[in-house]
Amino acid sequence: MKIHVLTLFPEMFPGVFGSSILKKAQEKGLVEIHVSNIRDFSDNKHKQVDDYPYGGGAGMVLKPEPVFRAVEEITQGKNPRIILMCPQGERFTQKKAEELAQEEELVLICGHYEGYDERIREYLVTDEISIGDFVLTGGEIPAMAVIDAVVRLIPGVLGQEASHIHDSFSTGLLEHPHYTRPQDFRGMKVPDVLLSGNHQKIEEWRMEQSLKRTFERRPDLLEQMELTPKQKAYIETLKRKSTER
Amino acid sequence: MKIHVLTLFPEMFPGVFGSSILKKAQEKGLVEIHVSNIRDFSDNKHKQVDDYPYGGGAGMVLKPEPVFRAVEEITQGKNPRIILMCPQGERFTQKKAEELAQEEELVLICGHYEGYDERIREYLVTDEISIGDFVLTGGEIPAMAVIDAVVRLIPGVLGQEASHIHDSFSTGLLEHPHYTRPQDFRGMKVPDVLLSGNHQKIEEWRMEQSLKRTFERRPDLLEQMELTPKQKAYIETLKRKSTER
Repeated sequence: MKIHVLTLFPEMFPGVFGSSILKKAQEKGLVEIHVSNIRDFSDNKHKQVDDYPYGGGAGMVLKPEPVFRAVEEITQGKNPRIILMCPQGERFTQKKAEELAQEEELVLICGHYEGYDERIREYLVTDEISIGDFVLTGGEIPAMAVIDAVVRLIPGVLGQEASHIHDSFSTGLLEHPHYTRPQDFRGMKVPDVLLSGNHQKIEEWRMEQSLKRTFERRPDLLEQMELTPKQKAYIETLKRKSTER
Repeated sequence: MKIHVLTLFPEMFPGVFGSSILKKAQEKGLVEIHVSNIRDFSDNKHKQVDDYPYGGGAGMVLKPEPVFRAVEEITQGKNPRIILMCPQGERFTQKKAEELAQEEELVLICGHYEGYDERIREYLVTDEISIGDFVLTGGEIPAMAVIDAVVRLIPGVLGQEASHIHDSFSTGLLEHPHYTRPQDFRGMKVPDVLLSGNHQKIEEWRMEQSLKRTFERRPDLLEQMELTPKQKAYIETLKRKSTER
């Protein structure tokens, strides 16, 4: 996969793209990530990329030309998804990450300043993505989140193919608790069942913990998934307990 | 404000913390950000911070000792909020950012590997925050998002005190479209009203656009806010139009 990032702050990215899984994915040749400065596509001799908003108001607006030109030069006539990182976009989810992981090429545009010229949104981009209802300085951190989530899903990127299957949201449930040594840390102990060596019991405990945590913290996730009869029965027990309290 | 980040990948942060608003906020002395490597708090001679999960399974689990020790050394007897970045946490919102911006000191713990030892969650942290329903390699990118959102809200950080008031979510509505020069870009034009010089009309158009966009993309936000009678009337018009189609 090829990923292009358009930004006014290219210096934000090397630390993130040079670490951990993203670093390994590039070293293995499974993904190429290119970061370009929108400023390099300005035809203005002062490399100006923003200007005052029509109609007045505070802040500066990212101009259309340098962004259109950057996308045109980068895509060279191909038609990849052009993703605008913006707070008004579709909420990013694991499902969207899975969809984007199927693409051969992606372009992510990170805005800054007060906003983008609306023509970028209307005529250039194919997707608008938001990572949540909070205000950030620019689209750079959201772009990092999208790229990390997508690249993890490219086959071969994770050491053990299976290791992302149990992650939260990949199964539709929140993860069960994890414990590692020491068995007793300042009096805080690991649950007995995990030390029992009885694998069936351990699996049952984990599934119950996973269901319990999801029931307590994110009941909306339960409504979206198909539960087995056994899981349903356990959820009914949890419901009874919570109303009895 | 003082912000401490605990991570296994400290090299991910300087590019982000050294750019744009976060850089300026630190230069102005309004925030101090310290990034520490959890590995430096391991008492193990191999600086080991993870171990196999009790009960078996793939992946490694972050051990409790180095994380407890790091937090204890950093907080020195004070009681700041200890925030665990984790997919099972409370969803981060602008409201949470506003709440955290009131604090004098924050500690953010970024996990990696398969998960954290449950005792960290149960006995050490005060808040668990997730930025959304997607799987990332670690808590580093989410921590960057939280820090950026929080630091922007510290008085004096943004050049114009007012400039974050109009951002999406700060008003409860999505932002209206922005336009800047050129007036005609390859035949794509700026709406006439913005060129009219009539400020009252411009304000009205912007409010309507803001309401329209929120109605179309995020009707859930409208339900959460108190609208003026004029805004309500406009929303009613939009509803009628959408059912007529």
